[in-house]
Amino acid sequence: MALVMDREALAAFLERDFGQVAGDFAVDRADEAGVTLRLRVAERHLRPGGTVSGPAMFGLADVAVYLAILSRIGPVALAVTVNCSIDFMRKPAAGRDVLAEARLLKLGRVLAVGDVLLFSEGVAEPVARAGMTYSIPKG
Amino acid sequence: MALVMDREALAAFLERDFGQVAGDFAVDRADEAGVTLRLRVAERHLRPGGTVSGPAMFGLADVAVYLAILSRIGPVALAVTVNCSIDFMRKPAAGRDVLAEARLLKLGRVLAVGDVLLFSEGVAEPVARAGMTYSIPKG
Amino acid sequence: MALVMDREALAAFLERDFGQVAGDFAVDRADEAGVTLRLRVAERHLRPGGTVSGPAMFGLADVAVYLAILSRIGPVALAVTVNCSIDFMRKPAAGRDVLAEARLLKLGRVLAVGDVLLFSEGVAEPVARAGMTYSIPKG
Amino acid sequence: MALVMDREALAAFLERDFGQVAGDFAVDRADEAGVTLRLRVAERHLRPGGTVSGPAMFGLADVAVYLAILSRIGPVALAVTVNCSIDFMRKPAAGRDVLAEARLLKLGRVLAVGDVLLFSEGVAEPVARAGMTYSIPKG
Repeated sequence: MALVMDREALAAFLERDFGQVAGDFAVDRADEAGVTLRLRVAERHLRPGGTVSGPAMFGLADVAVYLAILSRIGPVALAVTVNCSIDFMRKPAAGRDVLAEARLLKLGRVLAVGDVLLFSEGVAEPVARAGMTYSIPKG
Repeated sequence: MALVMDREALAAFLERDFGQVAGDFAVDRADEAGVTLRLRVAERHLRPGGTVSGPAMFGLADVAVYLAILSRIGPVALAVTVNCSIDFMRKPAAGRDVLAEARLLKLGRVLAVGDVLLFSEGVAEPVARAGMTYSIPKG
Repeated sequence: MALVMDREALAAFLERDFGQVAGDFAVDRADEAGVTLRLRVAERHLRPGGTVSGPAMFGLADVAVYLAILSRIGPVALAVTVNCSIDFMRKPAAGRDVLAEARLLKLGRVLAVGDVLLFSEGVAEPVARAGMTYSIPKG
Repeated sequence: MALVMDREALAAFLERDFGQVAGDFAVDRADEAGVTLRLRVAERHLRPGGTVSGPAMFGLADVAVYLAILSRIGPVALAVTVNCSIDFMRKPAAGRDVLAEARLLKLGRVLAVGDVLLFSEGVAEPVARAGMTYSIPKG
């Protein structure tokens, strides 16, 4: 499947349409295999004890797969998250960004499905895994 | 199963141990049937367009079931979220708080399982549904 | 939401369109609150040790929510399961049927979402819980 | 992580401890990257129309990740499935076996997490994806 938005186009989209959270994220990679999205971990993403919060990891997984979809269909359609199943497997390492490696498994007319692994930067074992389903509106 | 923390005790726990996010939430109810947790919706919970964000709904569901567990076992143990499967079914109504109705389905020695329905206040049909699993450490 | 297929209509549908597995199931109840479907537990549903197998419980949950959808939209459309998240919480009791209590949480134009609790007959605590999403084809 | 059971050992284990369903499956591969398990599709796995049933795909995913766990810890412990989230993405091709490619993402003292992609043999795009969590009893 050809890429219709590359890394720069996805980053510009985030900046323009997700201004509120765009500063949280950086698009590290976007190619035919998928998207790597970085959570620039800051104070507001942490739980007491200094670990990255569940909602911050959920949001990272969600935006990563969303961008993987847009990289194939462009910024025209507004995909809506309909299901997420996420496994929290390890405590993220303190003081490190979290990287999401997202891939698209299905891009249908109505539904798109992707999955994603989350890693503390520089650590081999994943901190979380998620499967995400999106509804793609007509148009 | 008897309640070991009531509404006031859960609210005090949130205040003390979740200071960073305690202002987001209010414990509306805690009884043998479960816990109702309110997300006091504010600007920081919204996506462009004014709807409550996915991470804010995830966080609400997570804290609601977490408190339902603590209401039975007390604040001694530190339960850890291991899995969440969440269905986003309808767009939350603008300008309304979101209420989470959580119930506990299993409280084992090692794992606890609960589920939760999320509603825009005053609207009958749920905006989201989640099943949550927690690991309960020894001690 | 009005019921367009009652218990007898659902049972007849199962018999006609799911002949291969119809003998596994009985529709105990179908009303506006949802559907109760019974797995008539037989040798072929058991794992070694005599407990009901995971696939048998998955199939029961799937058919129960599917019938809850059909009870509202009739037998015309062919809904397709797109996602299931199932929690296995307790070992089913030996020598008892398993009952699925399914309810519909959303019935949209494109997607339907339901959830279901599974019980060993006569036992109060659920053996499993599932959330199910179905795609509803045009027509 | 070293392999403590190889392809032959897993196949022998299936034969001995899962006699009832052992004929359904063949262990095609077991190495440090994971396990490939084959569903030898037969009449009893089909839905009307000739497609592989949801319960048969669920069972394949479950046994595949289960064997991936045993390949690391050996046949001593009895792991129990606690959660499965499965996405059904495409209709399996008629007349072909289904292959499950399972990998282990976490092997903790208490919980193991794996995921799995299911393919119709010879078809590049996956028919289903699942994340599975198992509880590992003491011993």
